[in-house]
Amino acid sequence: MAGVLLDMAISLDGLICGPGGADGGLYDWYFDPSDASRPVVAELVATTGSIVIGRGAYGTADDAQGWDETPYDVPHVVVTHRPPRPAPAGPVEFVFVTEGVREAVQRARDAAGDRFATIGGGADIARQALAAGLVDEVQLHVVPVLLGDGVPLFERTGAAARLAPIRVVDAPNVTHLRYRVD
Amino acid sequence: MAGVLLDMAISLDGLICGPGGADGGLYDWYFDPSDASRPVVAELVATTGSIVIGRGAYGTADDAQGWDETPYDVPHVVVTHRPPRPAPAGPVEFVFVTEGVREAVQRARDAAGDRFATIGGGADIARQALAAGLVDEVQLHVVPVLLGDGVPLFERTGAAARLAPIRVVDAPNVTHLRYRVD
Repeated sequence: MAGVLLDMAISLDGLICGPGGADGGLYDWYFDPSDASRPVVAELVATTGSIVIGRGAYGTADDAQGWDETPYDVPHVVVTHRPPRPAPAGPVEFVFVTEGVREAVQRARDAAGDRFATIGGGADIARQALAAGLVDEVQLHVVPVLLGDGVPLFERTGAAARLAPIRVVDAPNVTHLRYRVD
Repeated sequence: MAGVLLDMAISLDGLICGPGGADGGLYDWYFDPSDASRPVVAELVATTGSIVIGRGAYGTADDAQGWDETPYDVPHVVVTHRPPRPAPAGPVEFVFVTEGVREAVQRARDAAGDRFATIGGGADIARQALAAGLVDEVQLHVVPVLLGDGVPLFERTGAAARLAPIRVVDAPNVTHLRYRVD
């Protein structure tokens, strides 16, 4: 497979969402892409073979039924100590893993075929995966806004790593940065 | 004058220095610039009319004498509750301001001529200046390294702002991002 990609949008002050979980416009480039962002979005969708997310991204309620749609027609691996009851009815394929991030990433790798297992939601999961050395590439979509409060992608994680730049895409109102973890 | 510029180098995980204050290579692009970074460095030096830094950047000892050299032949305004004794002998011109960030920035503006008052060191000072609405432009030099621990430039500051991208310079091992604060 292609590897494990950590792919997240962040504000300039390093937050993945604003106060109260508000998205703060961090995914505008995704849902309404400019000409410059469109190939980045298309590549992301085309090269993702499975997705890893946290329980928050899936839906926090005990009976949450996930999402009705997603651009990614691939297995969505949800890391959680609390799988929803009843199990979601579809249409998106969710796999619930209760054994932690390492097992979830392994399951996602197994499901990714020749594409990426993409970690796409959940700051805790992103940090744990980085600290455990499970991430091969990092793509950050840096949005020029200071949200001031919310959930940081990184806090002092204790995970030190040098990254090798792959590319920078300078799009209107977002800068797409992609790196390989050495 | 040109305005107030916040200019800092940060790691990909948002830190301005590594564990124990180590610089973590965050200023390699400055001290040993690539062809792509050289104009950014030259512009920064040429357009800076005064500098604002914190006591840590100046030197933490009570009798610290500042630096022997700097590329910036301009007044350096140091925000501190604890000016050094004795006063530094030179050659760099230091001005100690004990009345806080707002007064320090005003002093730097007065000294900047038609150039920028550049806030170039001290995460606390950067955050306070942003929160007080004193910053006109932000330039971040994003270095592709995860330091894991150190001093974050931003933590949840409570300061929300939208920024307008001015330019992106994609240099080897650093991405120079510049924004105007709306």
